[in-house]
Order: sequence, then C-alpha cells, then structure tokens
Amino acid sequence: MVGSCRKCDQCVNDLENYCPEAVFTYNSVDSDGTTTYGGYSDILVVDEHFIVRWPKNFPVDKGAPLLCAGITTYSPLRHYGLDKPGLHVGVVGLGGLGHVAVKFLKAFGAKVTVISTSVNKKKEAIETLGADAFVVSREPEEMEVAAGTLDGILDTVSVAHPIQPLISLLKPHAKMVMLGVPDKPLELPVFPLISARKTVAGSLIGGLKETQEMIDFAAKHNILPDVEIISMDYVNTATDRLAKADVKYRFVIDVAKTLKAE
Amino acid sequence: MVGSCRKCDQCVNDLENYCPEAVFTYNSVDSDGTTTYGGYSDILVVDEHFIVRWPKNFPVDKGAPLLCAGITTYSPLRHYGLDKPGLHVGVVGLGGLGHVAVKFLKAFGAKVTVISTSVNKKKEAIETLGADAFVVSREPEEMEVAAGTLDGILDTVSVAHPIQPLISLLKPHAKMVMLGVPDKPLELPVFPLISARKTVAGSLIGGLKETQEMIDFAAKHNILPDVEIISMDYVNTATDRLAKADVKYRFVIDVAKTLKAE
Repeated sequence: MVGSCRKCDQCVNDLENYCPEAVFTYNSVDSDGTTTYGGYSDILVVDEHFIVRWPKNFPVDKGAPLLCAGITTYSPLRHYGLDKPGLHVGVVGLGGLGHVAVKFLKAFGAKVTVISTSVNKKKEAIETLGADAFVVSREPEEMEVAAGTLDGILDTVSVAHPIQPLISLLKPHAKMVMLGVPDKPLELPVFPLISARKTVAGSLIGGLKETQEMIDFAAKHNILPDVEIISMDYVNTATDRLAKADVKYRFVIDVAKTLKAE
Repeated sequence: MVGSCRKCDQCVNDLENYCPEAVFTYNSVDSDGTTTYGGYSDILVVDEHFIVRWPKNFPVDKGAPLLCAGITTYSPLRHYGLDKPGLHVGVVGLGGLGHVAVKFLKAFGAKVTVISTSVNKKKEAIETLGADAFVVSREPEEMEVAAGTLDGILDTVSVAHPIQPLISLLKPHAKMVMLGVPDKPLELPVFPLISARKTVAGSLIGGLKETQEMIDFAAKHNILPDVEIISMDYVNTATDRLAKADVKYRFVIDVAKTLKAE
C-alpha cells in the first residue's frame, strides 16, 4: 500500500488498508494518475507516511515479503485474538502466507497445526517450520481426529475449496479467518456456525502503524520468510514457476542489483 | 433447552446451549430416554437448573416466546457487542425473531433498520415496532443508499437467500450474525469479507444465566413479543397458518386452560 485518503474513519484509526481510496503498490492508480508497478519498479515515490522503518541488521531482501505475507498474517492473528500463548491455531495452505503464519504463531507461543490437501508438505511443516501437527484435509479420518480442537484458523487458500470440513475443526466460539480470495463464492454451511457460535471472517494486509509493529516484532524474533532471490531477467521464468507453485515460498527480485536501464 | 451434561467446558461457563449433550425442549431425547414434547406437554420434569425465575407481574403467556425468540436475539446482540447506544443495527426478516430483535435494540438505544424482501411490513416495522428505517432488499437503489451504514446485522431468515447484498450494508469491521438455518448452504463471497474485515457468525439461543438476565431485562423494559394466544384444539389450524407466515408473530398455546386429558 502506498497511499490513502488520510482523512476517513479508517485512515484516522491507523487502518489505511481499509480506506476506500487506498492506493496499492501494484496495479493501482496513484494520486498522479499513473499506474503503480510495485516491486517491478526501480523507484516509487510515496508520502513518508507509507514508509516503514527497517530494523538495523535485518536483511531487506529476505525480509521484503513480510510487507505482504507478514502483515497479512500478523494483523488477523492480533485482531482476532489468536496471538495468545497456549492457543491451538490451524493454518490452511503452506505457501507464501502460510509458512510465515506458522512462524508468527510459534513466536506467539501457540500450538500450530498445518492443514493441507496432500501429505507432501508434512516433513517441511514439522521439521523445518516447527509446526506441531499436520492434517491432510482430504483424509476424513485425520480430519475427524482433529475435529473441535482449534481456537482459530487462518485460511490462506486462494482457490475455491470446501470450508465446512475446516469449520468442523474449530472449537465452539472459534474463528476462521479467510486471507485468500477464491475466484468464486464458497459454500457456507450455516448450521455449524449457529450450533457452536463460530465465525468466518476476513482480513486484508494491515495499517502502517501495525506494519511497523510487525516488522519490529519479526526482527526481534528473527522471523524471515523463506525466499529465493532472483535477478530481474529471471522474472518470466519465475512467473512460470509460480503458476506451478514451484517456489519455497516467495521470489524476491533484487531490483537494485539487476534492473538495467534500457 | 431442558438439560445438558453440566460438566463440559460449555456447561461450566454458563453456555449450556453449546453443550454437545444439550437436551432441547422439543423432539430431543431426554435423560430418561423419552422424547421431549416442549410446549405441547402439560407437564415437563426438568432439573431446577433449567428453570427460569419469572418476574412478578410479567405476563407468562405473552412472555413465553422470549424463551426462544427473545434469548435467540438478545444473546448475539450482547455477545457480538451490538448492544451499545448509538449503534446502527440491521434486522433481516420481520417475523418471530425479527420483531423481538427490534424491541431489544430499541431498548439498548440502537438505531434500527429493518430489511425485508417486500415493502408490506414497512408500516408495521416503523409505526408499531419503532424501527428507524426500512429497506427493501429486492430494490437495488434502496440497498445502494444503505450500503456501508450498519454496525451489525441479525439475519433471522431461515430459507436460502443471497447474503452478499446484506454484507454490503455493513461498515468495515462489522458483523452479520446468522440466526436462521436455511436448508442448504449459502453462497459466501470472500472478497467483501477480506476487503473490509467483515465477519459472518452464528448464534444459538443462550445459556441459563443469560436467559435469566434476558427475562429480567425484558420485564424491566416491558419487552413482550406480539402473540396470538390459542387453545390446544386450534393447533392444526395454527400449523397451517404458520406455513403461510400468517401470524403476528408467534402463536402461544394456553396449555393449562385448554389441554384436556383423554
């Protein structure tokens, strides 16, 4: 996010991300009428309000995706009260958002269960990222064992998927927070929400104040996304690999070193 | 509700209504193995824990539906923080639940907008029940004017219906609480939840402690459902009229006066 109206209820409450006039870093119309190019630009002129203070000795290349995946997962964990030690929180989908969510949750002292459609990521989730448990959502028996055990869920999946089985993993009064935007509406079963007072909610990045808090927290706890740093001329290949989910877990373009003037 | 396990997390936290072993007043299996018949019985034996103290001089016939429609609307208004003076709350559907919701909300000091599929109930909603505004959900222009104005919504509709237009009436960070159980899943659009951090939740009656609080609050504020009191031999006719929504707003059977031993 690189701009907002600075006057509305959202802006004056440090929630610029929910300003109806928010200008996003990529593919938004900026205040001068030009299109924003985000991480594909060598220069982006923004008001200082939209600048984050970067902690000393915290790597800017590895850390860059925190400004998207980091704040997108940190903000709902804080807002929906899923940041308390001892809570048991589920993370659906282990990609760019999911793997950072696991790291924040472990730093908050939560017990973390990763939920994924296949067992392929189990070793990575538990041994590398430190998740406490792994559930394959396509295995009804595993889902049954985990039913009613979670205080909250972050759902990072951005394609249409069944949410009723995920809602069944929640304890009564617990919350599922959607972070990905599927291309079509999901099927919402109402009875499970009513019978155990459950909630389905959403969340979108975070305001500038909270983004700064998140970066400072990440630096203090040494939370860094797992990234593959690439040069600008690798962008098209990276895009193809992204389409196949072939990256752990984010590409970072080193623009400063590799973008050449034409 | 006439029974629960009294030992689980829900029960010890005054949330017997969310106990997995809750016994409901009608068509549940009671602790002695018999089926409960609720308001069609002349006698129902229950543990004293499930008895509500009835306020002096508060009419038991008119007040009876408070034990269902009353607590079903009061509890979510309290739990989800929609009980504050000055909030603007929507009530979708003006029936047994909806008309009591309007009365509680006015007692809390809220501004109330009733949302209904047709204009038929407008006069009743505003002149009789005291709602502040009325929006016809099938009129896109009326819905457009009301967009983004509500701090919360109670949705009392128990048939499948589009919720995207209702979600659009919410302010950012606001909550829609489902109280009716449609016979099939609803279509949940995810982007509107994410882009303004909105919530869709559910709620089911209330615990005994809160039910007592609700009855005392209703008596203090003289909140009574609008009912039609009938005799037992009118039950079949009443059932036919219910199917046509031909009642304002609940039938109450005067069992004591009209149930005859066979």
